[in-house]
Amino acid sequence: MKTASLIISCQDLKGIIFQITAFLYDLGANVINLEQHIEDGRFFMRIEWDLEHFQLNKTEFEQRFAQIADKYEMESILDFAKPDKHITLFCSRELHCLLDIINRTQIGELDAKIAFVASNFADAEPLVKRFEIPFFHVPNGVDQETQLLEILQQYDVECIGLARYMKILSEDFLQKCNVPVINVHHSFLPSFIGAKPYDDAYDRGVKIIGATSHYVTKELDQGQIIEQETLRVTHGDSIKEFKTMGRKCEKEVFAIALKKQLENKIIVYKNRAIIFA
Amino acid sequence: MKTASLIISCQDLKGIIFQITAFLYDLGANVINLEQHIEDGRFFMRIEWDLEHFQLNKTEFEQRFAQIADKYEMESILDFAKPDKHITLFCSRELHCLLDIINRTQIGELDAKIAFVASNFADAEPLVKRFEIPFFHVPNGVDQETQLLEILQQYDVECIGLARYMKILSEDFLQKCNVPVINVHHSFLPSFIGAKPYDDAYDRGVKIIGATSHYVTKELDQGQIIEQETLRVTHGDSIKEFKTMGRKCEKEVFAIALKKQLENKIIVYKNRAIIFA
Amino acid sequence: MKTASLIISCQDLKGIIFQITAFLYDLGANVINLEQHIEDGRFFMRIEWDLEHFQLNKTEFEQRFAQIADKYEMESILDFAKPDKHITLFCSRELHCLLDIINRTQIGELDAKIAFVASNFADAEPLVKRFEIPFFHVPNGVDQETQLLEILQQYDVECIGLARYMKILSEDFLQKCNVPVINVHHSFLPSFIGAKPYDDAYDRGVKIIGATSHYVTKELDQGQIIEQETLRVTHGDSIKEFKTMGRKCEKEVFAIALKKQLENKIIVYKNRAIIFA
Amino acid sequence: MKTASLIISCQDLKGIIFQITAFLYDLGANVINLEQHIEDGRFFMRIEWDLEHFQLNKTEFEQRFAQIADKYEMESILDFAKPDKHITLFCSRELHCLLDIINRTQIGELDAKIAFVASNFADAEPLVKRFEIPFFHVPNGVDQETQLLEILQQYDVECIGLARYMKILSEDFLQKCNVPVINVHHSFLPSFIGAKPYDDAYDRGVKIIGATSHYVTKELDQGQIIEQETLRVTHGDSIKEFKTMGRKCEKEVFAIALKKQLENKIIVYKNRAIIFA
Repeated sequence: MKTASLIISCQDLKGIIFQITAFLYDLGANVINLEQHIEDGRFFMRIEWDLEHFQLNKTEFEQRFAQIADKYEMESILDFAKPDKHITLFCSRELHCLLDIINRTQIGELDAKIAFVASNFADAEPLVKRFEIPFFHVPNGVDQETQLLEILQQYDVECIGLARYMKILSEDFLQKCNVPVINVHHSFLPSFIGAKPYDDAYDRGVKIIGATSHYVTKELDQGQIIEQETLRVTHGDSIKEFKTMGRKCEKEVFAIALKKQLENKIIVYKNRAIIFA
Repeated sequence: MKTASLIISCQDLKGIIFQITAFLYDLGANVINLEQHIEDGRFFMRIEWDLEHFQLNKTEFEQRFAQIADKYEMESILDFAKPDKHITLFCSRELHCLLDIINRTQIGELDAKIAFVASNFADAEPLVKRFEIPFFHVPNGVDQETQLLEILQQYDVECIGLARYMKILSEDFLQKCNVPVINVHHSFLPSFIGAKPYDDAYDRGVKIIGATSHYVTKELDQGQIIEQETLRVTHGDSIKEFKTMGRKCEKEVFAIALKKQLENKIIVYKNRAIIFA
Repeated sequence: MKTASLIISCQDLKGIIFQITAFLYDLGANVINLEQHIEDGRFFMRIEWDLEHFQLNKTEFEQRFAQIADKYEMESILDFAKPDKHITLFCSRELHCLLDIINRTQIGELDAKIAFVASNFADAEPLVKRFEIPFFHVPNGVDQETQLLEILQQYDVECIGLARYMKILSEDFLQKCNVPVINVHHSFLPSFIGAKPYDDAYDRGVKIIGATSHYVTKELDQGQIIEQETLRVTHGDSIKEFKTMGRKCEKEVFAIALKKQLENKIIVYKNRAIIFA
Repeated sequence: MKTASLIISCQDLKGIIFQITAFLYDLGANVINLEQHIEDGRFFMRIEWDLEHFQLNKTEFEQRFAQIADKYEMESILDFAKPDKHITLFCSRELHCLLDIINRTQIGELDAKIAFVASNFADAEPLVKRFEIPFFHVPNGVDQETQLLEILQQYDVECIGLARYMKILSEDFLQKCNVPVINVHHSFLPSFIGAKPYDDAYDRGVKIIGATSHYVTKELDQGQIIEQETLRVTHGDSIKEFKTMGRKCEKEVFAIALKKQLENKIIVYKNRAIIFA
């Protein structure tokens, strides 16, 4: 089934659901999913409808919808059955998240194509090439981000996934790349910001470790959280075991974040991410 | 905030959300929650609205809504800001679920009053009386269910919670009591039906145990599942430890089921319970 | 079965398990549990044995064991089948943890007697008195800790449990009370230190909340972690719902911490708590 | 660090830990891990020691240990630092577990070499060949098991992992293959035995699904459980979503089971698997 989805947010007023469902009904839409949320006097909704028998194409829809959007001063994100979405993954030397996403695309679990992989190290190259995915080794250095931006210009990607890419991206890069950047951090944020969260977790003696996927913003590890997962550890587990066990959480939260992004199921409000089901 | 909630189910047709939100909008309702679900070509929705500035009382609403309900051949469940809901709990000799629900009502976590407690044993009496809740000892015997029905007639309860009541209720009782009966079973159903699930779980060598709250139907442990919870065990945990650890799950799933029931958030379809958020 | 348990820690050397098991074997002990852990070149062990047919009483055992302990410069904690352990609980206005522990003692799940309850508010008094437990209202003020210490002197308690006691205990109090103090904090530490962790968690947009039981040390929320538990939330859950949902974790981690403490299953090393099974 | 590990089981008698630790101490062993378990009057223990400065090789150790083993009528499993363990994986058309294990061997998380992959379908061939792993397509048919046994004879594998191999192995095959066979079943056993557990789980309306890794025995889905994992679902998740979400559990329990097997951390007793940490 080909579907379109629309996420909106605006001031919470009486009758908004009615207005939008009436608008879609008049255009022949069969709504197959509607989810709403109210927070802080603001209204958020995601609505998805079957495109069969729907009377408008994307451009026509945007024009017609603009009237409602303007009236209510809505922000909106539209996804109109775009097929064949492309993403890119940046990695360093820890390759489990990268390999996991490759696997999920191989078996069709993640409905996306990996346009290319970039890394500040060469380690991943043989693995990536096994899958005939273009690989770019872009070592650390002054023109690293410039090179990455040039590569990005050759491809049309929906988002950048940082698959344990251990290099901080500058605010300048984040603006210029012009797509969402999603990171996986190997702790349950906001605990253990920084480069060695498993070591820090061990030293603090926690009984639960975890991982977090989040948008990358200019402040390190402060972006909106998309997904988190935790697992139990004991005093008997070493830092090395934390790292091995934690991969399970890292892989899962990263894959879920990319999937939600590609399915147009996220809208950001303040420092929170609203994640539709 | 005083609110009303309406759960409906009907054949899935275009425009139903629009029709109902339009109907409520015209009556001055401010929708604060709307959740829908489609399954098997059937449409389910729960909608909740603020009663401030709403123009109808319950009877008026029922009359007006009947027109839509008839048109779409809807089933519906309406909860119109009923204050002060009463429940009853039946128990036997294991008292943790009973005590847990008493606590939750004491601190206002469960917004209900326990009208009375009935048990086929006398054990619970001193504990129940500490809280000035009427207690009825109704021993096992031929007229046990008749006695229970007579006690029920003296009270106006929304539902019966079986807080580890180890006695099977007859189909006749279930019909005559005329309210939903919610049980907590000490396994993750459908595993380990019957009276000794922890023993059975131990013998099978499972690594996870759990508990299930469900509606009581005429077939033992076969009613619609409302909530489940599991927890990890190891080979080192004895049957006795299973029983102690498992209480955590039992208490939680039972409390959640009663809360969902009292908040009008459950509709049953076939052998499945749709649980609104 | 009456048992004794001994926790030791010392430098990790060859033959320590052999030495201790040989020592116990010679005295007729039947070991029913042995658990060891090595960390940082340091050896930790808990050993538990059946006291039936054991040849020594507590004093005799301490004298004989001193020879081994001295030889290896061991720290040790001995629990020699002490019956009828007493604890005290301090609380403020949130009573779910207090009520939960009372329940667990009522049904024998926690093998302890609550000697008394103290609070800086009077709210808990009627509930506590239902169970004939002495209650002391010790309002905030200059001599509050002095009063608490005086009450403590009248009772012989194994530990103090802070059941959501919202008042910081001074370093002076912690030294003078002379028993371990166990707190429950309503976040998964080290995230969200301070008085309003659920508000902070909401603002940060986390997808998982939790609770932590830990020893109270002079630095706020920095003591050794005994147990943690987490649960999933969504953007749809309000701060109020965080507070309600979180109680589940708070009750559980607090009860487990008290149980482990009373069963002599904790030894502290640096900022970590080693928790035996 | 090169280590040896020994699992023993025998009647529970006084002094066994002492006897074995004394025996190892006399041979110069530094014990780095000891875990014991008592059940049903039977004693189980796993002991692991550093082989540096250890005085015996494997054959010598077996000879010397035989005296103790005979005296106590012990069963034992010895793993004497065997490097480079080989396994094989059988699969059908669902490839996520296969790919996941390949990944874990690629990054060194699972310390094993995949000797070959066999399948009753050809689907996996291109993926497997990317990693230069021999692939055998052995279609369903009368001589299928004979062919599999012939292939097995060419390799020296420690165990067979059934990575969603949807074909029942005969009792005859299980005897002749002469190594443990570990399966992953896509439900939390004993619920939902058979070929379509996700469909069955959906129809039953469960709120939790899961996966189980277990030894394959002659009775379908009845072997000793090694690991289980569960995850929450809602009424809104379809059977298709169950299948996608469930992969997470399947991959994890299967990987853990293979790891435990290769690390000599499992001993079977009756219908239960004792899993050392």
